[in-house]
Amino acid sequence: MSMMTGERAAADTRAARREARLAIEEFNAEYCAVLDDGDLMDWPDFFTAEAFYNITSRENFDHGRPVGLVYCEGRAMLRDRALAIAKTSMFGPRYLRHYMANTRVTGIEPGGTICATVNYILIETLAELPEGRLHQAGRMIDRFEPQPGGGLLLSSRIAVYDTLLVPNALVLPV
Amino acid sequence: MSMMTGERAAADTRAARREARLAIEEFNAEYCAVLDDGDLMDWPDFFTAEAFYNITSRENFDHGRPVGLVYCEGRAMLRDRALAIAKTSMFGPRYLRHYMANTRVTGIEPGGTICATVNYILIETLAELPEGRLHQAGRMIDRFEPQPGGGLLLSSRIAVYDTLLVPNALVLPV
Amino acid sequence: MSMMTGERAAADTRAARREARLAIEEFNAEYCAVLDDGDLMDWPDFFTAEAFYNITSRENFDHGRPVGLVYCEGRAMLRDRALAIAKTSMFGPRYLRHYMANTRVTGIEPGGTICATVNYILIETLAELPEGRLHQAGRMIDRFEPQPGGGLLLSSRIAVYDTLLVPNALVLPV
Repeated sequence: MSMMTGERAAADTRAARREARLAIEEFNAEYCAVLDDGDLMDWPDFFTAEAFYNITSRENFDHGRPVGLVYCEGRAMLRDRALAIAKTSMFGPRYLRHYMANTRVTGIEPGGTICATVNYILIETLAELPEGRLHQAGRMIDRFEPQPGGGLLLSSRIAVYDTLLVPNALVLPV
Repeated sequence: MSMMTGERAAADTRAARREARLAIEEFNAEYCAVLDDGDLMDWPDFFTAEAFYNITSRENFDHGRPVGLVYCEGRAMLRDRALAIAKTSMFGPRYLRHYMANTRVTGIEPGGTICATVNYILIETLAELPEGRLHQAGRMIDRFEPQPGGGLLLSSRIAVYDTLLVPNALVLPV
Repeated sequence: MSMMTGERAAADTRAARREARLAIEEFNAEYCAVLDDGDLMDWPDFFTAEAFYNITSRENFDHGRPVGLVYCEGRAMLRDRALAIAKTSMFGPRYLRHYMANTRVTGIEPGGTICATVNYILIETLAELPEGRLHQAGRMIDRFEPQPGGGLLLSSRIAVYDTLLVPNALVLPV
């Protein structure tokens, strides 16, 4: 490959990653709004039919342990999860708010799959404790599939938390 | 409308929202810098002459109660507010820092008005308490008006907080 | 300068700042990932050979005091710093996570140097204290140098913190 061609290929890669990054930011803003608004039943629609979803600790992730607080394979399991939470979340009213920063495209595969990470913070506010607190902080490790009509769907999202305030019996999606 | 035209219209909408989102992010970075630097008298310049501004709790907002910690109609009221705070903020020196994430364009009206939301965090540091704390976390619900020379102005900003650390007598703008 | 030319110049400036802002966001996402992953020895590679790096309090910065928790002139000093920390960080395992928001390009100099600021949050999680806490919050004041092959390097980064949780003996870079 000539110098010229190599430079152009690098510029093309940068442009593709920029475009992917901006699309992911828009996806995540919608994703977080659905969770912040408590519209849990809409949450599975951000995933492909066969998607993998997990929330796991940094320690477990670093040691390759296939465990997690929430472990879903396929959109049907995500729907079951959402339904279970929607039914029980009457108890202990609380507000959650997601913040995502540092979106980073780590690769675009030949088939179009975009590999990316993003840091997240989850702030929780309880009715009986007006002072908000840091519920969860960590990193999402994602795989996005571009869709025919435009837009993206997640084929895999692993939320790796550094910190988790309360190891709840029923963990909410992030 | 033919399939072709429909697809192109959807792509146009996406492009317009992308452009609006990036412009809003730049607007908000300037907006936050002015508040973080304590340049309160410059704060009303981010609004149109007739702008509406309010800071209200998520509970009040969800129930449609027209109340708020700060309730301003028109830039003149914003100036009065800024002046009142500038005069009294000598008491209890503190630093504030704003963080905005998840900018989301929810619509662009035929007249050009951009409807958008963004999640915010406000960190407060008191001179006598070096450990920073989460002062406020919530969402902005905004209406932006594109200006002739380029750039945007807010015709409406409602800061809906999930959490508020101290219900101060004199609340600072966010 | 005619009205027309003036308007075009303003639009060109806006476009250049937009491009610079997006490039900086991508730079900072990589920068934070290296620190979050604990790859300290890769950290100096984000700086030019003669770069200046400092972490200082808002109070010291506002008073123009040339002091700081970390004060490095040149990449060699950054490497020494990274090495010193890498050797000692065995004690007290902890996770750190950086969040950057409100990237703001404040100017582009004729030589190409980009002046910019960004707000940052650093969340710390200790093994013995699973609840994450706000370790540092503040603003970066940066100078970026565009590189021949594309990409940026920092010729100056001053981290001005509002708040610092623990005045550690050996402060980690942010």
